[in-house]
Amino acid sequence: MKDVAARAGVGLKTVSRVVNGEPGVLPGTAALVQRAIDELGFRRNDSARQLRTGRTAGIGLVMEDVADPFYSLLNGAVEEVARSHGSLLFTASSEDDPRRESELALALCSRRVDGLIMVPAAEDHTYLLPEIAAGLALVFADRPPVGLTADTVLVDNAQGARDGVAHLIAHGHRRIGYIGDSSRIYTSTQRLSGYRQAMAEAGAPIDESWIALGPSDQARVGDALDHLLDPRREYPITALFTGNNRLTVAVLRELAERQRAQRVTGVPTPGGTPGLALVGFDDFELADLLTPAITVVAQDPAGLGRTSAQLLFARLAGDGSPPRHIVLPTVLVPRGSGELPPPD
Amino acid sequence: MKDVAARAGVGLKTVSRVVNGEPGVLPGTAALVQRAIDELGFRRNDSARQLRTGRTAGIGLVMEDVADPFYSLLNGAVEEVARSHGSLLFTASSEDDPRRESELALALCSRRVDGLIMVPAAEDHTYLLPEIAAGLALVFADRPPVGLTADTVLVDNAQGARDGVAHLIAHGHRRIGYIGDSSRIYTSTQRLSGYRQAMAEAGAPIDESWIALGPSDQARVGDALDHLLDPRREYPITALFTGNNRLTVAVLRELAERQRAQRVTGVPTPGGTPGLALVGFDDFELADLLTPAITVVAQDPAGLGRTSAQLLFARLAGDGSPPRHIVLPTVLVPRGSGELPPPD
Repeated sequence: MKDVAARAGVGLKTVSRVVNGEPGVLPGTAALVQRAIDELGFRRNDSARQLRTGRTAGIGLVMEDVADPFYSLLNGAVEEVARSHGSLLFTASSEDDPRRESELALALCSRRVDGLIMVPAAEDHTYLLPEIAAGLALVFADRPPVGLTADTVLVDNAQGARDGVAHLIAHGHRRIGYIGDSSRIYTSTQRLSGYRQAMAEAGAPIDESWIALGPSDQARVGDALDHLLDPRREYPITALFTGNNRLTVAVLRELAERQRAQRVTGVPTPGGTPGLALVGFDDFELADLLTPAITVVAQDPAGLGRTSAQLLFARLAGDGSPPRHIVLPTVLVPRGSGELPPPD
Repeated sequence: MKDVAARAGVGLKTVSRVVNGEPGVLPGTAALVQRAIDELGFRRNDSARQLRTGRTAGIGLVMEDVADPFYSLLNGAVEEVARSHGSLLFTASSEDDPRRESELALALCSRRVDGLIMVPAAEDHTYLLPEIAAGLALVFADRPPVGLTADTVLVDNAQGARDGVAHLIAHGHRRIGYIGDSSRIYTSTQRLSGYRQAMAEAGAPIDESWIALGPSDQARVGDALDHLLDPRREYPITALFTGNNRLTVAVLRELAERQRAQRVTGVPTPGGTPGLALVGFDDFELADLLTPAITVVAQDPAGLGRTSAQLLFARLAGDGSPPRHIVLPTVLVPRGSGELPPPD
């Protein structure tokens, strides 16, 4: 703060007023201070607030579910960036409940975090407008905000799903089932549209009964599989695309149980004969060590966390450019389950 | 607060003073208020503080690494209990760094959480004594505190490891390797002592070169395996016990890579011939779907989180009994890799 005061040619008290948004500073003087701050790369998080309150700087992360490996990797990457900026990270789970999300976000604000990274569950984020006006730095990750414009880092969900389904088509499949997340979730609708695009591009008609959307729990996925693999179907599916790693794991567990219990004879399993080809959106631990290994469209949850956190700290360092919209690519990782040919 | 005031026969202001630890209340009156609070099960978290500050009640969880599935399951269970008590949960990762741990714990206190659950990394927790004196409710999970007495919830690490190693012995193994976490970590030393106990009980001498302690990264585990499986050993190990799920996964990945690359001929792999039997401490996702499926000593990270959180909220509800020490059991889950016999 002393450096900023010296550079702007004003007193410490004036810098403090500008930084804390207090009245009593002429607009021209405030602009001088702001320019000095920008030039010096003055960081609000390790200076004014901290000096004033005696608190260590901190940022908040609100996401769906810490117990999901996707989010725990994202969280780990945000933590690493926060640490490198001398800031603490406080994380909270919305459990995909819009009311919980707003409670958590506002509670973090009232506990004086300098910035927030949100994986939003709510369908309206205007409740954050007063916080933004009060100086909160805010980045949305994985899903865009609704009702306001802010820095946003997404994954190219539609293109990723399109690549995965096109990969199955390239291996001879035309009847491809789709088990996805609830259509209420942004990423889920994007991925479903990628599936539709790939099928349309290949001239492969979609039977709407091949598409099963809903939560990731075992029971729902089991029901969806019963329906998709019903032996009475005249034209059974020969391949399956799953919309996230929770669903892929649930599908694998269901298929293994059927195989073990022989509950239904002739149910195709990945690697069995006839083999059901499978590509999943999201990589997951041990996918490469299963038999067959599971082909996935890998997104980079750590990259998503890292990029979001870097953007947040750039804002905290004074970057006042217009809100950015960053889209991260996915990578298709062929491992075996997605290259199984359809039965003749 | 009105109910407490009515029951104690004092004014609201007096209750407020007692709850907030302000002076100006006679000891006898304070005792009356305290009794009324105890009788009514008055919860500090959803009353006094919240009314006073306008903040939603919140608790904090400080743990080693949110990206580790063990901790994300623990976190999810704490979140569930917090939610059922109308409280928010803020989580932070110490990354097993004692200085980071104390920064995070004190930062959460200064941000007015009502209670803290700690998976401690520090080797001295006396820095928390002033917070406890100021009314902080505190529970240690997974590892005990050092330098103070507080509610603690642990897993029976020694007994769990003993069960796992005894299981290998019961299947005919006498030369059993041990890959464990750093000896600096409480759970690691407990598990190693369980290994030693089981071996001693079976009258199986331990070659100290079978024991490899250190971090869970792939490179370290690869080196440890090179050493353990060195073909020049006169009496090679026939079984392996791994000290946590990160290590088990790293071992499986290393063995699979060796098998693929045929870097060393004749390296035993689980399920190969000759098979290296394997039991891991900690369950992990997909352990049951690998070939062979992996036998584990399962602890219950969700139970650990749930028990710790329930204890914390009991304290916040006024439970003033002496600090408790709870030890949760483990369960041996035989799945295949731990039942492989030694080669003749």
